Amino acid sequence: MAFVFRQKILFKHCDPAGIVFYPRYFEMLNDCVEAFFADILHHPFEGLHGAGGVPTAQISAQFTAPSRHGDMVDFTLRTAAPGRSSLALDFRAACDGETRLKANSTLVFVDGNGRPQSWPESLKAALNAQAER
Amino acid sequence: MAFVFRQKILFKHCDPAGIVFYPRYFEMLNDCVEAFFADILHHPFEGLHGAGGVPTAQISAQFTAPSRHGDMVDFTLRTAAPGRSSLALDFRAACDGETRLKANSTLVFVDGNGRPQSWPESLKAALNAQAER
Amino acid sequence: MAFVFRQKILFKHCDPAGIVFYPRYFEMLNDCVEAFFADILHHPFEGLHGAGGVPTAQISAQFTAPSRHGDMVDFTLRTAAPGRSSLALDFRAACDGETRLKANSTLVFVDGNGRPQSWPESLKAALNAQAER
Amino acid sequence: MAFVFRQKILFKHCDPAGIVFYPRYFEMLNDCVEAFFADILHHPFEGLHGAGGVPTAQISAQFTAPSRHGDMVDFTLRTAAPGRSSLALDFRAACDGETRLKANSTLVFVDGNGRPQSWPESLKAALNAQAER
Repeated sequence: MAFVFRQKILFKHCDPAGIVFYPRYFEMLNDCVEAFFADILHHPFEGLHGAGGVPTAQISAQFTAPSRHGDMVDFTLRTAAPGRSSLALDFRAACDGETRLKANSTLVFVDGNGRPQSWPESLKAALNAQAER
Repeated sequence: MAFVFRQKILFKHCDPAGIVFYPRYFEMLNDCVEAFFADILHHPFEGLHGAGGVPTAQISAQFTAPSRHGDMVDFTLRTAAPGRSSLALDFRAACDGETRLKANSTLVFVDGNGRPQSWPESLKAALNAQAER
Repeated sequence: MAFVFRQKILFKHCDPAGIVFYPRYFEMLNDCVEAFFADILHHPFEGLHGAGGVPTAQISAQFTAPSRHGDMVDFTLRTAAPGRSSLALDFRAACDGETRLKANSTLVFVDGNGRPQSWPESLKAALNAQAER
Repeated sequence: MAFVFRQKILFKHCDPAGIVFYPRYFEMLNDCVEAFFADILHHPFEGLHGAGGVPTAQISAQFTAPSRHGDMVDFTLRTAAPGRSSLALDFRAACDGETRLKANSTLVFVDGNGRPQSWPESLKAALNAQAER
């Protein structure tokens, strides 16, 4: 199922041209993923004990229209079935029906030394329950 | 010709796992491009009068190894011949011979209303003089 | 009346020691003020037409205890009666009854050239209605 | 002796009004302190083994004039003699002789559990050699 994360475009996100500075979009995408793990999967990032976290291995984004201060942007996240230690993500952000960005990325679940490790069983089950493809 | 931008990994770039939080890499890539326009092309971003700037239309990055606090990372930028209003960029970041990220992106030169506009002739000539392909 | 702005401490806010990197607190304080103007005063920052915004003229903060990833922190904002073009703010952030920071700041309402200008009447009335002292 | 840290105001530092967004100044102040520890004290942050770092306990800043994209700003840092585990800092940032900000802060050297600990002897000696008052 798709997860929708709403983010108002704030002053801090915008550049001198009055539009979102693109590195701020990646912070928003990270916040979206963090909310998905906490609110939908019930495995918040801060509770992944012994883990080095879920760093992003690759990300690709197209910025199809600018977002401005005050816009309410909905980030829609879809996830694939998890790999052994990876997860493929697909994002679309839109405001009032206009697509602002499309992105896809791959996360990897790593241990404290940064080595890929298997998803915990309960988290894997939660990921499978949400997988779209 | 390749432009090399050296950035020490600072405290502010790093996450609780002690490695660069990936949105910070995109700030570094932006800083690298800004330095290239100022120092090599001699057309600093702040001097592009009447312009809405050079927003990024798409970017794709692979993070092949983590960077840690204190690492000296060299970002190598190569540029293609400019389009009418666009520019294709290719990045590689490395520390001690180890590749940390590879990325490519496309910039667009826009006017104050965000519409693509032709590169100024002097800037276009400077871009062509640096183009690798 | 006090305005309470709840912010979960996210991965992006934290440093290699696992606590909030203090410049991120100032982003949170700014978000708190932005939410106060939008949600309570009904004069969102993005609607202050012809304005150069409400830059911060001074700010002072004490960080009395660290905040960690996952903490739910309540930022309590109290405002004084507005000056001609200024506003004094008082902040306290706490989690589970423990104070994390205390801060005070002064905003100035400026025109597009950065010169202080009088608050619009409707905004001044809204500020007076919220003033605590 | 005073330590001077030069920072060009970059696109990423600026807000929709075209001036530095004030939380970015605090990132610059942190970068200035980090450079002082690395380049002058020869005890870089990343080499403070077993430490939880040098979090900021309090900071106070006045923003006396705006800084714009492209400005070359010199941050001048002066330090007091160190306390047992603390350090008082004084900052002034200026461009072309115009003061942009004045700030003072207190750092604390903490262990991995966030408890104040004594400065290492060699670092304390280096701090004393730089102390202005």
